[in-house]
Amino acid sequence: MSTGKINVTADNIFPIIKKFLYSDHEIFLRELISNAVDATTKLKQLSRMGEAKGELGDLTIKVEIDEANKQLRIIDRGVGMTAEEVDQYINQVAFSGAEDFLKKYEGKLDGADIIGHFGLGFYSAFMVASKVEIKTRSFKAESNEAVHWICEGNPEFNLEIVEQEDRGTEIILHISEDSEEFLKDSRIGELLDKYAKFMQVPIQFGTREETVTEGEGDDAKEEKVTVPHIVNNTEPAWTKSPSELGEDDYKQFYRELYPMTFEEPLFHIHLNVDYPFDLTGILFFPRIKPNMEIQKNKIQLYQSQVFVTDHVEGIVPDFLTLLHGVIDSKDIPLNVSRSYLQNDHNVRKISSHITKKVADKLEELFKADREDFAQKWNDIKVIIEYGMLSEEKFFDRSKKFALMVNSDNEKFTIDEYLEKVKENQVDKNGETIVLYAANKEAQHSFISKAKGKGYDVVILDSPLTSHYVQKLESAYEKVKFKRVDADTIDKLIEKDEEISSALSDKQREELKEAMEANVDKAKFTVRLENMDSSELPLTITVPEFMRRMKEMQMTGGGMMMGELPESYELIVNTNHPLASKILEAEGDFKSNLIKHATDLAMLQQNLLHGEALTNFIHRSVDSL
Amino acid sequence: MSTGKINVTADNIFPIIKKFLYSDHEIFLRELISNAVDATTKLKQLSRMGEAKGELGDLTIKVEIDEANKQLRIIDRGVGMTAEEVDQYINQVAFSGAEDFLKKYEGKLDGADIIGHFGLGFYSAFMVASKVEIKTRSFKAESNEAVHWICEGNPEFNLEIVEQEDRGTEIILHISEDSEEFLKDSRIGELLDKYAKFMQVPIQFGTREETVTEGEGDDAKEEKVTVPHIVNNTEPAWTKSPSELGEDDYKQFYRELYPMTFEEPLFHIHLNVDYPFDLTGILFFPRIKPNMEIQKNKIQLYQSQVFVTDHVEGIVPDFLTLLHGVIDSKDIPLNVSRSYLQNDHNVRKISSHITKKVADKLEELFKADREDFAQKWNDIKVIIEYGMLSEEKFFDRSKKFALMVNSDNEKFTIDEYLEKVKENQVDKNGETIVLYAANKEAQHSFISKAKGKGYDVVILDSPLTSHYVQKLESAYEKVKFKRVDADTIDKLIEKDEEISSALSDKQREELKEAMEANVDKAKFTVRLENMDSSELPLTITVPEFMRRMKEMQMTGGGMMMGELPESYELIVNTNHPLASKILEAEGDFKSNLIKHATDLAMLQQNLLHGEALTNFIHRSVDSL
Repeated sequence: MSTGKINVTADNIFPIIKKFLYSDHEIFLRELISNAVDATTKLKQLSRMGEAKGELGDLTIKVEIDEANKQLRIIDRGVGMTAEEVDQYINQVAFSGAEDFLKKYEGKLDGADIIGHFGLGFYSAFMVASKVEIKTRSFKAESNEAVHWICEGNPEFNLEIVEQEDRGTEIILHISEDSEEFLKDSRIGELLDKYAKFMQVPIQFGTREETVTEGEGDDAKEEKVTVPHIVNNTEPAWTKSPSELGEDDYKQFYRELYPMTFEEPLFHIHLNVDYPFDLTGILFFPRIKPNMEIQKNKIQLYQSQVFVTDHVEGIVPDFLTLLHGVIDSKDIPLNVSRSYLQNDHNVRKISSHITKKVADKLEELFKADREDFAQKWNDIKVIIEYGMLSEEKFFDRSKKFALMVNSDNEKFTIDEYLEKVKENQVDKNGETIVLYAANKEAQHSFISKAKGKGYDVVILDSPLTSHYVQKLESAYEKVKFKRVDADTIDKLIEKDEEISSALSDKQREELKEAMEANVDKAKFTVRLENMDSSELPLTITVPEFMRRMKEMQMTGGGMMMGELPESYELIVNTNHPLASKILEAEGDFKSNLIKHATDLAMLQQNLLHGEALTNFIHRSVDSL
Repeated sequence: MSTGKINVTADNIFPIIKKFLYSDHEIFLRELISNAVDATTKLKQLSRMGEAKGELGDLTIKVEIDEANKQLRIIDRGVGMTAEEVDQYINQVAFSGAEDFLKKYEGKLDGADIIGHFGLGFYSAFMVASKVEIKTRSFKAESNEAVHWICEGNPEFNLEIVEQEDRGTEIILHISEDSEEFLKDSRIGELLDKYAKFMQVPIQFGTREETVTEGEGDDAKEEKVTVPHIVNNTEPAWTKSPSELGEDDYKQFYRELYPMTFEEPLFHIHLNVDYPFDLTGILFFPRIKPNMEIQKNKIQLYQSQVFVTDHVEGIVPDFLTLLHGVIDSKDIPLNVSRSYLQNDHNVRKISSHITKKVADKLEELFKADREDFAQKWNDIKVIIEYGMLSEEKFFDRSKKFALMVNSDNEKFTIDEYLEKVKENQVDKNGETIVLYAANKEAQHSFISKAKGKGYDVVILDSPLTSHYVQKLESAYEKVKFKRVDADTIDKLIEKDEEISSALSDKQREELKEAMEANVDKAKFTVRLENMDSSELPLTITVPEFMRRMKEMQMTGGGMMMGELPESYELIVNTNHPLASKILEAEGDFKSNLIKHATDLAMLQQNLLHGEALTNFIHRSVDSL
C-alpha cells in the first residue's frame, strides 16, 4: 500500500477556466475589478492597523481602454504584490490569496470585506485576453522595485524585476480577436454599470464634462471643465443603517437601481442581519399592474457590494420574486443550481427570514396607518395571496391584515368581514356564506341583486381566487364562499322561507317543457324557481363547485378532472309576468319570446356571441 | 528576467470542483456512468482493432445501491486501468484521459464516441461522497492484478495492489450525510431516466418481474421470474437512418421521449449532418393548443446519447423552441451562457441549418399533400408566423406555403389569396385591401356585412397578427390589411361611388347634435355616413392604425406610444329609418331611443358592460 498526493497539472487548467469556470465571459471584468477593490481594501485595513505606513493618497481604481493597442487596463493603488506574492498568488493557481489573508488577520478585521478568490478570479482574464501583463509594486517595497509578469495563456510565464513609481497593481489585457467587444466604451460602461455600480472603492472610467463657476460676483464665468468620471456609488443605501435614511433616500435609491422605471415603489423593507447569517438589503413592493408582464428578475443579488445575479429564485420564496430591490449576503453560495440552493441551510434560513421580515413590515404598516395600507391593498394583494397559499407561516401572519374589499370598496380584515356578514348571511345550516364576485363589471347584475336582498358582496378578482377561497374555507370553520352567479340569491343563502308559485303544478310542467323545447339542452339545465316577481324572468347560473375546480385546474393545482364541460343552469322565475305570457303564447310568437328572453339572460352572463348576437341586435333594431 | 511554469496546487481543487464546476450535484451520476460507457466503448474499439484479445463477455454496466453501508456503486466491464493509468488519469487532475486516448488512436476510430474528460468527470463524485474507492483491473493485466484506490476528498490517496477476478472498473461512493437522497431507489431511477435513458451501453439498475411461459401445450405454465432491469435504449431512433424508420417508429420514439404526453405529434423532422458540423436528432411539431401554457423546454439536448439539458434557447432559433424532440451534437459547447452560444460559429450554423430543415420539411409537406398540410395549419401557424417575423430567410421560404384562411374556412397561399381578392377588393387608389377579422365570433356582424357586399374576410387570430400584417404589408406592394371593424364597409374599400343622403344638410346637422348630446364624447367621435338603408342605424368602429399600434405595443415591438387611449367612431347611417325617427322624437323618448340604439351598437362591439348592461337588460325585459 502506498500513499500519494493528487497532482493537478497546469497544462489543462486554461481550457478549464475558459470553458467551465464561468459561462459568461464578461465576468472577467467583475473579477478583475473585485481584485482591485480587494487590494485597496486590504491596504486601508493594514494602514488602520499600522502595518502600512504613510499617506495612502488617492485610491481611485482606473479602467482604461487603449483601442489602438487593443488593450484594456485595470489599475489600482492597493497593496500591490512582491515577487514572492506574485509567485504565491498568481503562479499557484487555485491558491486563494484572500483566504490566506483572512487567516493571517483573523479577528483583527473590522468589517473588511474581502472579495473573491484572488488566484482564480484573475485567471478569468484569459477568457478574453490572449496575453495578460501584471505590473505591480507592493506597499512593502522600500525602493521603486516592482514586478512585471507576462503570460500568453499557456503555463509558461515571464517574470522581470522593473522600476515603478507608483504603488499598486496594473493589469493589462491584450484583448483577443474574438473578444474585441471589450474594447468598446459602451460595452465596458455597460458592464461597469452592471457589476461595479455599488462597489466599495471609487472607480474611474473616462471623463465627463462639468460646468464650474470661476470668479465671483460680476466676474463670475461659467466654464466647462473635464473631470474624471466615477462610475460607482461606494455607499449605497443598503449599507447604511435604517436610522440614517429617510423616505426620500429610499426612493432615491430605487431610482438609482432602476433608472428606466418611472413608477415609484409602494414601500420598502430594510434587511439587516449579522447573526446567524449575514444579510443586508432593501426590498421594495412595486405596484403590480394587471395586464403588465410580471417581471421576476428585478431583485439584484450582491456579495459585498459586487453584483452577482438578478436570478434570485430559490433564495427568496417564489411569491416574493415579484418584489424589487437588493439583497447583499456573503452566505449565499454562487453559481449553484436552484435545487442546491433550496437545500442549503443558510439559504433556507435567509429565505424564511425574508418572509418573516415581509410579514413584519406588512403588519407594521397595517397597524401604523390602516387607511394607507388599505389604499395600497389592490397593488399588493396578489403577492400576499400567493404567499398565503404557498407558505403556511405567512398565512398565519397575513390573515390578520389581509383585506376583504366589498363592492362598495369598503375594506375589512377577514375576521371583521366574517363578523359583519354573520348577522345576515348565515344559512339554515348555520354556515356563514361569503358572497363574492370575480368582476364587478361583468357580474354587475348579480351583485346588485344580492345587494337588493341586503347582502354584502366581496370582490375577489385575483387570478388565484379559486385557490384562495378554497384555502380560506379550510382555515375558517363553517364558512363557505359562493360566487354571486353560482345560483339564485335565495339558494345561495338558503333560509327557511319559501315563496309560493303563481303557477299551478300543471302550468309549471308546461312551462318547463316549453323552455326545454327552445334552448340548447346540452348546455342548459332548465330549473323553475318561485322567486319574487320583481326578479328577472330568466337567469343563467354557473354552479360553484364545478366552476371552482375548473379554474383551479387552469391555474395549476386542484384535482385533475380532464376537460370539464361548460355547465349552466337556466333558472325560470315562475312568478314573473313573462312566465304567464310564455304559457299563453303560441306558435312562432311563443318560441320567439323564449328566444329573446333567453338571449337577454345569456347577455347578462356574457354568453351571447357571434351569429346569435348579430341576430339579437337586428331583431332589437327592428323593434325600435 | 526569469521564466517559470504556473503550478496548479491540489489543496484547493476539491472546493473548486465542489462549488464551481457543476451547479447541479446530481450531475455526478451522469459523469460516472459516462465514464463507464466510455471505458466499455474503448474496449469494444480495441477488440475490433485486435488490441484487446479474447471474448468480451457481457458488457452491461451495473448501478447498485447498498443502503445499509451508504454506498452507491457503478460497475463496468470496460478497459479498466493499470496502476500507471490510475496515476495518469486519476491522480493527475485535469489530465484528460479521453483526449489522450483519442490522440493515440487518431484516425483509427470509426464512430467511437468518447464522452467526457475522464479526470474531471470522475472528481464530480466528491460532490456527493465523503470517500470514493476505485477497484479496477485493466484488460491488459495478465494475472488478476488490480488496483484499489481510496481517497477521502483531500489530496492524499491510498493505492494498493489487490486481486480481482473480473476485468473493468468499480466505483464505490461513500455517500456523504447531506447527499443521502442518492441512496434512494426512486432518486437514482429518476436520474438514470433523465441522463442515461439513451446511452450506448446497457445499464442495469435493480431487477424487475417478468412473466414467462414454461413447458408446452397443456403443460404450459405461466411463471413470474426476476430479470435484470435494463434502464436504457442503446439505439434510440435518432441514431438510425431515416430510411430504416417508419411513421410508427417516430411515434413510438415520441412516446418514449414523453411518456406522460398523450397527444401525438403532427409530424417530424429527422436531422442528420456530418459535415461541416456534427448533428443528429429528431424534431416534432406538436399541436399548439390555445389556452395551454406553452412549453419551451421540451427539446432535449444530447451529446453522444448522453442527456445534457432541456434548455436549448440559443441553439435553436427562438421560434422553434416550441418544438419537441431531441438534438444530439458534439459541436455544441456545454455549460456556457446563451450570449456565448449565440456567438459560437458552430452553434450559429447549427441553428440556421435547423431553420432550413424545418422550412424544407414544411415545403415538402405542403407540396406532397396540400390538403393534409392545410388540416395541420391551425396547429402550426403560430410557430410559422413567429418564424416569418423573426427570420428573414424563413419568411422568404414560408411565404410560399403560409396559408390564409377565410371565414368560410377556405385556405389559400398568400399569392393565391391576393390574386383572388384582386378582382373585387382593389380600392380607388389601386391598393388591394385584405379584410381580416381577429375573432370570427366576436366580429360576426362585421364579417357578415363585408360578405354581404361580396367581399372576402380572412381570419387572423394569432397573438402576433398585428406584427404579421405589418410585415406582409411591407413585403407585398400595394397591399393593405384592414380589420373588418376598422370602418364602415364602404370606407374600408373605397370605390368611386357615392350614396346620397335621405336627410337635408340641416337635418344632418340636427341629428349629429342630438347624437353628440347623448353619448360619451370622450370615447366616441360621431360621424354621419350615407349608407344603404338596410345597414344598421348605428355602428361603432375602431380605426385600424391606432388599434394596430396599440396591439403591437402590447405584444412587444412597434413604436412606444405610452398609454394609447381607447378611441372609437360612432357611425350614424343617415339613410336608416331610425335616423328620421330620432330626428322626429322629442324629450325623454328621443334620448331613450338614442340610448337604446347606442347600447345595441356597443353590444355589437362587446363594449356594453356593468351597470349599463344591467339597465339595458331590464329595459329590454320590460318591453317584452
